[in-house]
Amino acid sequence: MASEPESHATEPVNIPVWCVGHKIADQNLQIDDAIVEAEGNAGYDMITGSITNSRFHKRVLRTLAQAASEKRLQVHLDPLTADDVNLHPGPHISGVIAVTSSWIEVESPDPLYAHVSKQVLDMELAYAAFCGLGHVVVGGPKTRQNIAEYAQAISAALSHSTYMQLLIQLPIDDWVGDREALTTNLLYDPLSAWDAWNTIRTICRYSAQLTIALEIPPTLPDPAVIQRWFAEPLRMLLIPSHTFCPNSKGFPVLSKFHQALLTKYMRLRPTPHILLTETDIQPVIRNPGHSSNVRHEPLAYLIYIRHQQKTQPAQSIVEKFGSGYQDYLQAPLQPLADNLESITYEVFEKDPVKYNQYEKAIKLALDDRKLGEEIVVAVVGAGRGPLVTRALRAAELSGRSIKMVAVEKNPNAYIHLLRQNRLIWNNRVTVIKSDMRAWKPDFQVDIMISELLGSFADNELSPECLDGVQRVLNPNGGVMIPQSYSAHLTPIMSPKIYADIASRKSDPDAFETPYVVMLQALDNLAENDHIEKVWGFHHPVPNNILGEAASMGGGFVGLSDGGNDHNLRNSKTTFKVPRRGVVHGLAGYFESVLYGDVELSTRPDTIDQKSKDMISWFPIFFPLKTPLYVPDKSEVDVSMWRQSSERKVWYEWIVEGFVRTGSRRFRLGSSDLHSSKKNGCLM
Amino acid sequence: MASEPESHATEPVNIPVWCVGHKIADQNLQIDDAIVEAEGNAGYDMITGSITNSRFHKRVLRTLAQAASEKRLQVHLDPLTADDVNLHPGPHISGVIAVTSSWIEVESPDPLYAHVSKQVLDMELAYAAFCGLGHVVVGGPKTRQNIAEYAQAISAALSHSTYMQLLIQLPIDDWVGDREALTTNLLYDPLSAWDAWNTIRTICRYSAQLTIALEIPPTLPDPAVIQRWFAEPLRMLLIPSHTFCPNSKGFPVLSKFHQALLTKYMRLRPTPHILLTETDIQPVIRNPGHSSNVRHEPLAYLIYIRHQQKTQPAQSIVEKFGSGYQDYLQAPLQPLADNLESITYEVFEKDPVKYNQYEKAIKLALDDRKLGEEIVVAVVGAGRGPLVTRALRAAELSGRSIKMVAVEKNPNAYIHLLRQNRLIWNNRVTVIKSDMRAWKPDFQVDIMISELLGSFADNELSPECLDGVQRVLNPNGGVMIPQSYSAHLTPIMSPKIYADIASRKSDPDAFETPYVVMLQALDNLAENDHIEKVWGFHHPVPNNILGEAASMGGGFVGLSDGGNDHNLRNSKTTFKVPRRGVVHGLAGYFESVLYGDVELSTRPDTIDQKSKDMISWFPIFFPLKTPLYVPDKSEVDVSMWRQSSERKVWYEWIVEGFVRTGSRRFRLGSSDLHSSKKNGCLM
Repeated sequence: MASEPESHATEPVNIPVWCVGHKIADQNLQIDDAIVEAEGNAGYDMITGSITNSRFHKRVLRTLAQAASEKRLQVHLDPLTADDVNLHPGPHISGVIAVTSSWIEVESPDPLYAHVSKQVLDMELAYAAFCGLGHVVVGGPKTRQNIAEYAQAISAALSHSTYMQLLIQLPIDDWVGDREALTTNLLYDPLSAWDAWNTIRTICRYSAQLTIALEIPPTLPDPAVIQRWFAEPLRMLLIPSHTFCPNSKGFPVLSKFHQALLTKYMRLRPTPHILLTETDIQPVIRNPGHSSNVRHEPLAYLIYIRHQQKTQPAQSIVEKFGSGYQDYLQAPLQPLADNLESITYEVFEKDPVKYNQYEKAIKLALDDRKLGEEIVVAVVGAGRGPLVTRALRAAELSGRSIKMVAVEKNPNAYIHLLRQNRLIWNNRVTVIKSDMRAWKPDFQVDIMISELLGSFADNELSPECLDGVQRVLNPNGGVMIPQSYSAHLTPIMSPKIYADIASRKSDPDAFETPYVVMLQALDNLAENDHIEKVWGFHHPVPNNILGEAASMGGGFVGLSDGGNDHNLRNSKTTFKVPRRGVVHGLAGYFESVLYGDVELSTRPDTIDQKSKDMISWFPIFFPLKTPLYVPDKSEVDVSMWRQSSERKVWYEWIVEGFVRTGSRRFRLGSSDLHSSKKNGCLM
Repeated sequence: MASEPESHATEPVNIPVWCVGHKIADQNLQIDDAIVEAEGNAGYDMITGSITNSRFHKRVLRTLAQAASEKRLQVHLDPLTADDVNLHPGPHISGVIAVTSSWIEVESPDPLYAHVSKQVLDMELAYAAFCGLGHVVVGGPKTRQNIAEYAQAISAALSHSTYMQLLIQLPIDDWVGDREALTTNLLYDPLSAWDAWNTIRTICRYSAQLTIALEIPPTLPDPAVIQRWFAEPLRMLLIPSHTFCPNSKGFPVLSKFHQALLTKYMRLRPTPHILLTETDIQPVIRNPGHSSNVRHEPLAYLIYIRHQQKTQPAQSIVEKFGSGYQDYLQAPLQPLADNLESITYEVFEKDPVKYNQYEKAIKLALDDRKLGEEIVVAVVGAGRGPLVTRALRAAELSGRSIKMVAVEKNPNAYIHLLRQNRLIWNNRVTVIKSDMRAWKPDFQVDIMISELLGSFADNELSPECLDGVQRVLNPNGGVMIPQSYSAHLTPIMSPKIYADIASRKSDPDAFETPYVVMLQALDNLAENDHIEKVWGFHHPVPNNILGEAASMGGGFVGLSDGGNDHNLRNSKTTFKVPRRGVVHGLAGYFESVLYGDVELSTRPDTIDQKSKDMISWFPIFFPLKTPLYVPDKSEVDVSMWRQSSERKVWYEWIVEGFVRTGSRRFRLGSSDLHSSKKNGCLM
C-alpha cells in the first residue's frame, strides 16, 4: 500500500520528469502571470483556465431562451468581448492549459443547442489559438449516443488550428451506471468510452492534433481496459481528489492499482501530464482521528504525486537501451546488399546476453566432439569479430583444439579483423575476405557459426546466405550455429504507428514495408496475448534439396527462376480475439535454437526464459493500409508468405476478420494483399 | 414461357450487340485460324481454347508423383514446350478467349500441389499474354475455404500482365449442396460465391483487370443474389447446355427467369459475353415425342440465344437518353459561379416531362388567382427561356392576364432571350439582365418561377439564390414555384464507381466530391430498397428568418459569418441492411413540389408516379474513401450535413455500421468524415 510521503530520506538518482498541473475550479478566475507564478511556487508545473466565464454562459442562455421562444432552429451568437474571457496573451500562457466550457454539447439532439454549442466551441478554440495556447482540454461526448455528430464538430474544430492540440476528456470505461456496482450493471460496457474515442479519431483521420485527457476514477476497470488506453495517445491523466483515499495518518494516497496505472501510463512517450482536479473540495471519506497531522489540504495531493514521481521503479535494461526508440519506425537492415558501418556493429556488440548465449552454444557443440582432434570452427560474416572472441573462449573452456576461421565480405571490417587478430587473438585466426557464398577453402568446416538473423528470423536472408556456404560444411557431422530459427506473429492494435505511417503521404509503399520498431504503445488483440509460430528454417539443409537448387544456377548470385523455392514459406493462422479492437498490423518476433538447449528469443512471452535482457533486436511490424475493426468474440485470420524471385526475398500478408455463428464463420472484412516486393531484401 | 425460335417473322430495328461464344470441349484441340473461321461460320463470335493440353497435364502429374515420393514441398516444373500448348500467335487470336487448366488449384491445402499450381498458372498466363490474348477465363476457388490463398495467387498473376483481363469463373451462389433442394440445405449460403469474389477483388485492390465469368445454373437463386452480381464487373455469362430446357417441339429454350436474367445482365456496359458450354453433350432431360423436329443439336442453343437477342424489349426513354452515361462520373454544375454554354441549356430543354410539369404547376398557380387582375409572373434564371414559353402558354390556358418578366445573369443567354422575345414571344416579355440576388425592380412579383434544383435538390444553391430574390416577391400572397424540395439518400454498393474514383490517384479530393452519375451497376443495401428523405426547403422563407440573415450582411454577396445559418441542415438515418454487403457510398435523389399536387421526383420508387420519363437529372453519389463491409442483419447509420460559410456551401457525410445484440447496438466500423468543402458550391 502507499507509503507516507514525508518518510523518504534519500532520493533515487534518475527521477523521471512528470508535469503535474492544477485544475482551477473557479470558472471566473482571470488567469494572469501572478496566478501562474503563485501556482508554480506551490509546486505545480501548469494550471488550467476556463476560456470563457459564467457571464458569457448567462448571455448564451438568454440567447437560447429567446430563440427557443421563437421556435427557431438556429441563432447567431454575438462575438466574444473582453468581459467574457479569463485568458489573454502573454508569457505566462506557456504554463496554462485551456479548458472549453463544460456546458457545451455539440452533439445535442436539440438542434438549437447543438448549433449554439458548435459556435461556442469554435469561438473558444479560435480565441485560445489566438492567445497562443498549445493544449486545450475539450469535454468529450456526454453519452455514448451521437458520437458521429460529436466527431464531426471536432473535425471542423481541428481545421481551425494547425498546431494546437485538442485533448478530448473521456471516462476510462463508460458513462453509465453506478461505479460501485459495475459488475451487476447490465448496461455497463467497459470498452464503451474507448469505442467512442476510436470512432472520433477514425472520423478525424487519426489527426496528430487529437489526443486524450483520461479521467482516472476511484474504481478502476479490468486490466484489459487499462492496457487498451495504453495504446492510445494519452496526453493527460485527470485525477480528481476523490480518486485518492486517506492513509492511516489522514493523508491522501492512491491504491496500489492506481499506483501501478500511474507507473504504466507515465512511461508512455510523450509522457502524459497529470492534472489534479477538485483539490479544493473537502474529501467525502476522511479518517477523523488524524486531523491534527493534516497539512494544508489542497496541496496534499500534489505532494503525494511528487512522492510517487520520486519513487518510481528503475527502468529495465531493455527500457534503458530502447529509450527514445519507442514506436520509432526503422527500415530493416540490408546487410547483404550494403556494407555496415563500424558504429552499427558496435551497437550490436553491446548486447552481452546474445554473445553469452553464442559462447554457451559453441561450447556445447565443441563438447559434443571427440577430445584431441582438431576441429575447424568458422565464423561466416564475422563483422568486427565478437563471435571469434567467444569461439576462442569456448574452445579454451571446452579444452578442445580448434582451427579458427573468420570470413567477412565487408573490406573495412576485414581490415579491423586483421588488426584484432594481431592485437587480441595472437594470430590464431585465419581471416578470409570473401562473400561467404563465394568462399572456396581447401578444407571443410566442422562448426559453422553465423549471426545473420533479423527481427523476423529470416528477413535478412540468413537462409539464402547459409545455403550458399553449406558446400564448405563437413558432410560428416558438420553443424551450424544457429541450428534453426523460426518466425512468430500476432495481430496488434497500434494507432500511434498507424498514424505515423499514414502521414508518409509521399511514400506510396509506406504500408507495404515491414518496419523494425521497439513496440510500446500497443494492445495485443489475440486471446491471452497469443503469438503464433508461422514457419522455421533448419541448417544444414538436406543435400538433395540444396543440390537441386544449385543445379538451377543457384549458389552465389544469379539464382535461376525457382532456384530458391525451397526457402519459400507460407502460413495461415486463426487468432481468437475476445475483445473488440482495431487491427493495425502484425507484430513479428523470432526464436532460434543456437545449439542444443541454448536459445534466443524476442517473443515477449519467452524472452525472459530463453534470453532475458537481450537487446539486439526490436520486433518487426507489418502494417495494414486500412485498419480492420473486429468486434467482441471475433476471429482474425493472418496469411503470410515468404516470397522469392531470383534476385530478392519479400513478404506478403493478408488479414481477415470473421465472426462465428453456430458452425459457420462469416467474413467481416479483409485487408488488401500487402507486399514488400518493391522493398524486398536483395540477395 | 419461351417461344419457338423459328416462329418470328420481322426483326425489330435496334438489335443489341451480343457477343456469343462457344466453349471448346476438347482439351487438346489446336486453336488455329481454320477452327476460328469454322466456328464463325456457324454463328459464334468467339471460341475458347485451353492454353495447355492433356500431355502437359500428364507431365505435371508425373513430376508431382515423383516429388511426393521424395516428400518434398516444392518442385520446379520444366518450361512449356510447343507440344504442351493449343494456342499460338496469329490474326485468329482476336476471336479466341483462353482458358486456364481446370486442374489448377493454387489454394490447395497440399503445399506441393499449391506450389505447382501457381507455377502452372503463371506459365499459362505468361504464354497467353505472349500470344496476344485479351481475356483469359481462370477457374475460381474450388471451395469457399482458402479464399485468401487463392486471391494472393491471383494478385501475383495480375502483376504479370498490364492489360490482359482475368475472368474469374464463379458459381452464382454457392459451391455446396444439391441445387434441387437449396431451400432445405442448411449449409447453403446464397451470397457465398459473391463473398468469395468480394474478398478476392478487395485483396487485389479492385484491379480493373479482374472481372467475372459467372456460371448460370438451371436453378436460379433469390432475385437479391441476381441483383448483387448486377453491381459487379460481369464480363462473361457461362451458360451450360443443361441450363436450357426443351420446349414442346424439343428445342432447347430458357425459362422466363433465365430470360429475365439475360435481359438484365445484357444491359450492363460493357455488355457481358455469353459463352455456351457443353453444347456437344446430349442433354439429360429430353422431350421424346418430338425428336424428328430437332435440328443439328449443338447449334440449337446458339440459335435460341440469337433469337433472344433479336427479341429484347425496347429501351426506355431514360435508358436511351442515358446511353453511354451509365456509371460515368461528372462533377455537379456550378451554375452560380460559372456561365453555362448554350449546349448545356439545350440538353436540359430536351426533357418534355419536366417542362410539362412546370406548365401544369404555373397554370394551377394562376388558376388560384382572381380573374381579371394583372398577375406579375417572373422566371428568375431564365436561361434560354423554356419556362417563359411555358408560363405564357399556361396564362393562355388559364385565361389570366400576366406581366411576364425574365431575369437572367448570363450575358450570352440574355442576348438569346431578347431574340426569342422578338421572334417567338411577340415582345410580351420584360427581359432583364441581372443576377437575381441583385435585381431591384420597381414592382413586386406574384408568381416567381425558378429551375435551380440540382441532383440533390439544394446542391446548386437554390435556397441561397431564392433567399436573395425573395425581396421582390409580393408579401401578400406571392408564391414561388417550386414551393418546396427535399433531398433523399440511401446507402449503396457500387464497386464499379468505387474503382473509378480510387483510380484517380492524382486527385487528393477524389473521395471528397459528390458526383452526378447515372447509376446503373449498383445494389441497394437498405431493406426494401428504402430511400430516406433527409431534409427539405420551403419557399418563401418566413420573413423574420430572412430579415435576420440580411441584417448580418446577407442578401447578395459577402454574407457575414452565420448569415446563411438558416440554410444549414443535418440529418441522421438508420438503414436496416438485411444482407451483407459493402457500402461504397450514398445515392442521392430529390423530390420537389412545384405547386399544389404537381411534383418532380428522381427517386427510383416515386419517379414513375410523380414525373415518369423525366431525364433532366441523374442521381448524385457521395463516395466513401474506404468501403465499409456490413454483415447480414446489420444497420447502417448515415449522418449528413449541409454546411455553409459566407462564401460557399458544401456537404459532409459519415457512414457507420452496427449490429444489434439484444437491446444494445455495437459499432462495427465507421467511415472518415468526408467533406466537399474544398469543392464546395460557390455563392
